[in-house]
Amino acid sequence: MAGMSTPPLPSLPEWEISRWFNTERPLRLADLRGQVVLVEAFQMLCPGCVSHALPLARKIHQSLADSGVAVIGLHTVFEHHAAMQPHALEAFLYEYRLTFPVGVDAPSDDGPLPRTMAAWNLQGTPSLLLFDRAGRLRARHFGAIEELPLGVALGQLLAEGPAAQPVADSAGEGEGACADGACAVPPARS
Amino acid sequence: MAGMSTPPLPSLPEWEISRWFNTERPLRLADLRGQVVLVEAFQMLCPGCVSHALPLARKIHQSLADSGVAVIGLHTVFEHHAAMQPHALEAFLYEYRLTFPVGVDAPSDDGPLPRTMAAWNLQGTPSLLLFDRAGRLRARHFGAIEELPLGVALGQLLAEGPAAQPVADSAGEGEGACADGACAVPPARS
Amino acid sequence: MAGMSTPPLPSLPEWEISRWFNTERPLRLADLRGQVVLVEAFQMLCPGCVSHALPLARKIHQSLADSGVAVIGLHTVFEHHAAMQPHALEAFLYEYRLTFPVGVDAPSDDGPLPRTMAAWNLQGTPSLLLFDRAGRLRARHFGAIEELPLGVALGQLLAEGPAAQPVADSAGEGEGACADGACAVPPARS
Amino acid sequence: MAGMSTPPLPSLPEWEISRWFNTERPLRLADLRGQVVLVEAFQMLCPGCVSHALPLARKIHQSLADSGVAVIGLHTVFEHHAAMQPHALEAFLYEYRLTFPVGVDAPSDDGPLPRTMAAWNLQGTPSLLLFDRAGRLRARHFGAIEELPLGVALGQLLAEGPAAQPVADSAGEGEGACADGACAVPPARS
Repeated sequence: MAGMSTPPLPSLPEWEISRWFNTERPLRLADLRGQVVLVEAFQMLCPGCVSHALPLARKIHQSLADSGVAVIGLHTVFEHHAAMQPHALEAFLYEYRLTFPVGVDAPSDDGPLPRTMAAWNLQGTPSLLLFDRAGRLRARHFGAIEELPLGVALGQLLAEGPAAQPVADSAGEGEGACADGACAVPPARS
Repeated sequence: MAGMSTPPLPSLPEWEISRWFNTERPLRLADLRGQVVLVEAFQMLCPGCVSHALPLARKIHQSLADSGVAVIGLHTVFEHHAAMQPHALEAFLYEYRLTFPVGVDAPSDDGPLPRTMAAWNLQGTPSLLLFDRAGRLRARHFGAIEELPLGVALGQLLAEGPAAQPVADSAGEGEGACADGACAVPPARS
Repeated sequence: MAGMSTPPLPSLPEWEISRWFNTERPLRLADLRGQVVLVEAFQMLCPGCVSHALPLARKIHQSLADSGVAVIGLHTVFEHHAAMQPHALEAFLYEYRLTFPVGVDAPSDDGPLPRTMAAWNLQGTPSLLLFDRAGRLRARHFGAIEELPLGVALGQLLAEGPAAQPVADSAGEGEGACADGACAVPPARS
Repeated sequence: MAGMSTPPLPSLPEWEISRWFNTERPLRLADLRGQVVLVEAFQMLCPGCVSHALPLARKIHQSLADSGVAVIGLHTVFEHHAAMQPHALEAFLYEYRLTFPVGVDAPSDDGPLPRTMAAWNLQGTPSLLLFDRAGRLRARHFGAIEELPLGVALGQLLAEGPAAQPVADSAGEGEGACADGACAVPPARS
């Protein structure tokens, strides 16, 4: 975000989704080239996701979809798996009026972290990632995020053509379990 | 609440609970005589419950338990039953740091409404009920509620001895499904 | 307030007012016997007064005046005197839609603190005082205050007859100048 | 702002300032070329300015000054002139911790509207204006404004070089006097 450090950000592999909601056909990150892409990684029972991250993602979807911002939810369940199965997520999306596409991060065979979350090395939920029109990761943030700097970052990405430099990689203070609005992946798992 | 109409309020039967959380042994409303009792009927996937009603119940539990207010949660699931089973509620209570006793309203054999919700004729979630020290229902409110009038009502009930008149019966504007922060029981069901 | 310590509270002398707004004739604390009286001591350029204390006083006036709560504003100017003269206060009250009676605490001849503020030994602004129906001081609070415990205290005072014990004397963390929403009287002055 | 209509915006004359605060020497809009300039026109007794517009301007100053955004306050007093003289403004800026440069819009000889406010045809307070790095007016908004679209607009202006098209001209619902957080210039005066 504006004013944050801008370390080199890694190139991320395509997401792995076991089920989609709010889209007629499966989406690939690669198919969204040309748009600025905001990925909100969340869990439906993560308090900070419910109170802050998802309402903000919803607001961005409503106000900026026509301006070229694609909002994608990524349900990255790494705890309480039985309580957050896809049928429960479906009820959650309905009750919270979330209408942007949401993909269920594919479960892994050898651990609690789902595949995309592990491949992208996410620290927990909520995690927000911004990709530019060329599909490159440009910012990443774990934890609560403020509207103003997020708006500035989106404005900068919308203004540029498909070629640019990293914007930011940052994280909140979460250090395990859910606290201060964010659920961190325990150290042992990451 | 203060300034609200005060119609005669019905005498309510004992709640019917299929499972308790946050208490070592089952509770009965009758056992709480001597305390002012606040019952918060909620569903874990009801947005208004999560954003307003439960945080307020939590605050009251933290600040007024020592003053004689017993806060009891009542999980009155009347929709999305598969997504709100007790094991999911347990994860929810843990993540949202809710430590007051919560009872699961016993499912009914002949309809989506659980037993206590039907017997008490609740309109939906969140529903807040206040019982005086003598165990009589003194106020009932469906929908979002403000802190100031709720505080006034609690102060009035705390100040009186075990004998008094009804305080209020009121409801928000919810008219079916979840809107404006409250989930109403559909007309056909009530 | 509920759960706070309840030291013996002093008996306070009548306020000294140099000019009234929002009332046709001068008011005396003694004339308000029979009502619960909430006095909000404020300054029109005190940020915490403007953002929290006065909106709450306004809400209480609107919702509880009919229930027996008299809300009185006390403009206790102890700094920036030239900027907070009565003509400026009049514009302020108009723009902020404050319609409860407000008295200008009479200036002192020998210091920056106005007469009532000094006689009542107020620590700064905002300061809230609650008097019971018998005119006795029952609670006092310097700094930001929460709606729930204030509502409880009001409910308790409304419920009792004209005879009771102190409720509370408490203060925020302000330690000089305006910080965290409260303006403290400098130590040298008090 | 993003998604808003983008009518041609007028070229504005230089501001006329009778006194400056928070700057060692007088500023001219023309001197700020190369920076994105946010002008917040306000009155110290305008509730919407105090509760929303000025805290947002303060936040932008704190977080984006280093990124090339210059925040300038413009005290455009068009009512209650006696209560909002420069000495009162000085106390206000001190108490509200506003540290960005603030200019007092020069009073007019023939009416209540100050000179810049009249020349720029502002509808009331708060009014926000955005100028690009080339000094051209790019957006204008009367009334409350949301952080997200403002952030997007700032990001877009920061991303571009010194040459571009208008972004937006919009207004809130204020229709005279102060309501819903904005103080409108009465029709007769404009």
